[in-house]
Amino acid sequence: MNVMTELEHKGRQAKSAARKLAILSTTVKNQALIQMADRLEAETARLLTANAQDIDNGKQKGLSQSLLDRLLLTEARIAAMAEGLRQIAALPDPVGEGLGMQRRPNGLEIAKVRVPLGVIGIIYEARPNVTVDAAGLCLKAGNAVILRGGSEAIHSNIAIIEIIAAAAYAAGIPEGAIQFIETTDRQAVNALLKLNQYLDVIIPRGGAGLIKTVVENSTVPVIETGTGICHTFVDESADLVMAQSIAFNAKVSRPAVCNSMETLLVHRQIADQFLPDMLHKLSQAGVEVRGCQETMKYASNIVAASEEDWATEYHDLILSIKIVADIEAAIEHIDQYSTRHSEAIVTQNYDHARRFQHAVDAAAVYVNASTRFTDGFEFGFGAEIGISTQKLHARGPMGLPELTSIKYLITGNGQIR
Amino acid sequence: MNVMTELEHKGRQAKSAARKLAILSTTVKNQALIQMADRLEAETARLLTANAQDIDNGKQKGLSQSLLDRLLLTEARIAAMAEGLRQIAALPDPVGEGLGMQRRPNGLEIAKVRVPLGVIGIIYEARPNVTVDAAGLCLKAGNAVILRGGSEAIHSNIAIIEIIAAAAYAAGIPEGAIQFIETTDRQAVNALLKLNQYLDVIIPRGGAGLIKTVVENSTVPVIETGTGICHTFVDESADLVMAQSIAFNAKVSRPAVCNSMETLLVHRQIADQFLPDMLHKLSQAGVEVRGCQETMKYASNIVAASEEDWATEYHDLILSIKIVADIEAAIEHIDQYSTRHSEAIVTQNYDHARRFQHAVDAAAVYVNASTRFTDGFEFGFGAEIGISTQKLHARGPMGLPELTSIKYLITGNGQIR
Repeated sequence: MNVMTELEHKGRQAKSAARKLAILSTTVKNQALIQMADRLEAETARLLTANAQDIDNGKQKGLSQSLLDRLLLTEARIAAMAEGLRQIAALPDPVGEGLGMQRRPNGLEIAKVRVPLGVIGIIYEARPNVTVDAAGLCLKAGNAVILRGGSEAIHSNIAIIEIIAAAAYAAGIPEGAIQFIETTDRQAVNALLKLNQYLDVIIPRGGAGLIKTVVENSTVPVIETGTGICHTFVDESADLVMAQSIAFNAKVSRPAVCNSMETLLVHRQIADQFLPDMLHKLSQAGVEVRGCQETMKYASNIVAASEEDWATEYHDLILSIKIVADIEAAIEHIDQYSTRHSEAIVTQNYDHARRFQHAVDAAAVYVNASTRFTDGFEFGFGAEIGISTQKLHARGPMGLPELTSIKYLITGNGQIR
Repeated sequence: MNVMTELEHKGRQAKSAARKLAILSTTVKNQALIQMADRLEAETARLLTANAQDIDNGKQKGLSQSLLDRLLLTEARIAAMAEGLRQIAALPDPVGEGLGMQRRPNGLEIAKVRVPLGVIGIIYEARPNVTVDAAGLCLKAGNAVILRGGSEAIHSNIAIIEIIAAAAYAAGIPEGAIQFIETTDRQAVNALLKLNQYLDVIIPRGGAGLIKTVVENSTVPVIETGTGICHTFVDESADLVMAQSIAFNAKVSRPAVCNSMETLLVHRQIADQFLPDMLHKLSQAGVEVRGCQETMKYASNIVAASEEDWATEYHDLILSIKIVADIEAAIEHIDQYSTRHSEAIVTQNYDHARRFQHAVDAAAVYVNASTRFTDGFEFGFGAEIGISTQKLHARGPMGLPELTSIKYLITGNGQIR
């Protein structure tokens, strides 16, 4: 069977399952999620064995230590995946939620209700926990899912899918609702991106390269996620203790994630008071700084930032710093280089706080807080399938409601137009 | 200047204008809309002259009478376009609307507010009134717009744009907010579809061919609109007088629009009572019927429906009719051929009404009413930019809120994670 035929087969199965899943009761979906969690834990040994194969292969291929760590399953990580499914079971079901009802002058009653999107394609990279997360979230929101994981995690992913799909189907989820593309042939991604007949949306989760490939080649609607060139602007009037704490947290607490800071913008008037201490603290934490000419005066170990630096998501303990004349210059820099994910200002000036929030175009715009809070759990959604950096359909952290569409139900007694 | 350079220039101007437009006051936008309306009416003579050129060219090219009619401007039609702009001015501004606010346990306050999408590309066909409508709706929702109209209406469109853009800018709308692609070079459409750097969404408005081209070639997110293969199912328990009235209305009242009926499904048990009268009435109205084998027994002038008929949006006084065994067969047929626009059941059976609304996957699902009501004005939105037949972002009639995105505004006092 060639790749396209296989993909169409999976697509057909998923679409057929999606029809039934769309009208399945919440109780059945929740019980399935709990069964999936229980089976994952019960099969810990099998999962560890499969994962060991991936780790071995990864070492042979010379994967980096950080990639190997993302790939690694442990008993604790398996328990955490199971716990994630139980948490999804405990969340309210978005399907069937009423979003408004009106009676028109002619007596027609028009209700707007949430329905599943249908079939969701998810293309992701190394971490096997995404397989569980994505399957669980799609299922709870009534969607069938076609998953395409990275080749590094193939043995782990296949084992996970076999366990959770069997548990789900045994608990009453329609067969075919959870599909996984087992071939690591890269053609499969291209085929998936053209599967308009069966897919309602594709969500890529991974690095900028993956996202770009998907956006440029998909004829299926895409939700872009996750690239974050996030800035923090320390305004003239900032509380400098607060500014240091926020900037340090935004860069250092977890540099590999998309909501961490890549560029620090500093108002020229407070650079003398703010930067020496800030640079010292960053240096102690092992952060490499790349700065504008002015910034370089404040420490001897600062590398000159190139044009490319301002446009780079480092995913690492590297920070670019630029001194700016005022809030307008900060907004302009952000406008030019931001990926519209998360942006922050630290200020005590009321007008500047307002101006920044109005003028900066991003999913999340912060005043006096770390950009690190852009996250489905921190936003109280109880789950997250990714962080959308586009404006269509969903923006910012996506929870269960973002995995749904709507439908108008109209009831009448013979109305004609 | 080649097409791509010209498009990029327009894109840059539009994006720059969009930044300012996003934070412009409602008052300025409304005054601009009213000025645009006044100027259109004041320049009626100029518009009629430009339109006469298009009509002349159209006649020379041998355009059909119905296309020429859609192209034609009259004093009344110009007044109607102006009136449309005044109605848009009177609608509430979606920008800035609060969609929820929460205080998190750590004291962070997270507000979700509506913001404009940014820059919207609209590709459409013959009717010049779309130029005015689309520009007005995008402007009110705070978006810059790049319009690409059909070559048949080029003189009318250029005159319209000159008038409304000048009026808008004079009233305080940032220059560049209303862009029109003057070249009729088809390359311009392809260039527009790749303008990701400047465009946030593309909305095609037109026939199935145009929509298909856009979906298959655009790397910019697309909202599909307007193709409607809509069905009406007359159930065994239907009130047959009501069923005839609804079916007749859905087919005959305006066959060229997307919410009209293309296929009538009839429950076998009531075919004898229902069809002879229905067919007589359709025939009197000049409707050509293409039927399944069973349907053909009820009249001698029924053509056999081919597989292609079930999948065709006629846009004309043509109707396909199929006799089905029961509601499940009706749902199955709809599932196979529907474009997920509008579907209706006529029934007195409570369970069947519920079953149909749950199981049929379409933007609008009707019980005992004509599909012709799927329309922004009939739904009380006061405006309509098109009817989305996809599930992402917007589904069904799109009003002003569907031309917006959201943004999270987070305020803190030093929160770190």
